[in-house]
Amino acid sequence: MDERLKRQLDFILEIDKEKNIFRQTHLSGGGRAENDAEHAWHMAVMAWLLRDYANEPVDLSRVMMMCLIHDIVEIDAGDTYAYDPEGLSTQKAREDAAKERIFSLLPEDQCAELTALFDEFEAWSSPEARFAHALDNLQPLLLNNSNDGADWKAHGVHAGQVYGRQRQTRLGSETLFEVTDGIIREQIRKGNLPEG
Amino acid sequence: MDERLKRQLDFILEIDKEKNIFRQTHLSGGGRAENDAEHAWHMAVMAWLLRDYANEPVDLSRVMMMCLIHDIVEIDAGDTYAYDPEGLSTQKAREDAAKERIFSLLPEDQCAELTALFDEFEAWSSPEARFAHALDNLQPLLLNNSNDGADWKAHGVHAGQVYGRQRQTRLGSETLFEVTDGIIREQIRKGNLPEG
Repeated sequence: MDERLKRQLDFILEIDKEKNIFRQTHLSGGGRAENDAEHAWHMAVMAWLLRDYANEPVDLSRVMMMCLIHDIVEIDAGDTYAYDPEGLSTQKAREDAAKERIFSLLPEDQCAELTALFDEFEAWSSPEARFAHALDNLQPLLLNNSNDGADWKAHGVHAGQVYGRQRQTRLGSETLFEVTDGIIREQIRKGNLPEG
Repeated sequence: MDERLKRQLDFILEIDKEKNIFRQTHLSGGGRAENDAEHAWHMAVMAWLLRDYANEPVDLSRVMMMCLIHDIVEIDAGDTYAYDPEGLSTQKAREDAAKERIFSLLPEDQCAELTALFDEFEAWSSPEARFAHALDNLQPLLLNNSNDGADWKAHGVHAGQVYGRQRQTRLGSETLFEVTDGIIREQIRKGNLPEG
């Protein structure tokens, strides 16, 4: 087998580990925690279905691949909860080291291509990145909404914190932010998310 | 919220159930069984990385979406093991009913679009479908290969049965069939897969 293909297959086997990186979000119906691979799958399907709501035109296969790989670094760096300030402060250093190790398994051109796609996502620097972030925000919100805000309750999260993160959805999709805002207001009204 | 967006979000929440449909394949390292969402995520990443090995030029976002949705019908129909003749005989009827129910949650145009994409995959009727099938075959083979053929051993599967399915990978990718053939021969040599 040639070296290029061997490196691609090594990477493909390595990322199997993403299925064992569990998030704070729970599956709809209040089941177990969701893992990164499931979250990424869900986001990529959403990208295809909801593409017309992106603020700017997007290249669909780039958005989908961005969704599929944006959490691969967590194989080494672990999941950082969106409302954990301490974890967030060390997140970049941990994820940079992981990015270097994991993408380097690939042939040089694909390592560079995926690293650039990952960095573009992290920097919110393209319509694709901003739309992918809108999906990254909306996907767990939909699950948590279906579970009456159980994940927020478990972490004592307030509406201000949720808006702090979710407000950025507007950069990628005004329409999906309207959905988000409606869900947050409804959850506050139901008493599942404290104001403030 | 408008009706179109509401239907899209209903579908998105419904397919969360795919994360609870478990396959016969186990994660690399001999861990738990893999679920359909994880399998689809892995295939879609593979589509992007291995696209140059497709026998014919493919539209990448169509291959990726085909990979992402090809098992959604199993939410109702369950997983049918590739080497279970009884299950295979009723598979089509079960999956047709599921396809009708699940895709009908979507707005009419997206229901038609995803149904057509699913049917195209099932019929092997395009370069995209044939390449997606090559990935559908190769993904569990890579995991099972990394586990010394444990899934074959658990089901008493012989090399002839494996070739019966995996030979069709050639229709989508001659190169990936060479990889497949190399893996199967190696597993036979190691005594993990009986000949015949």
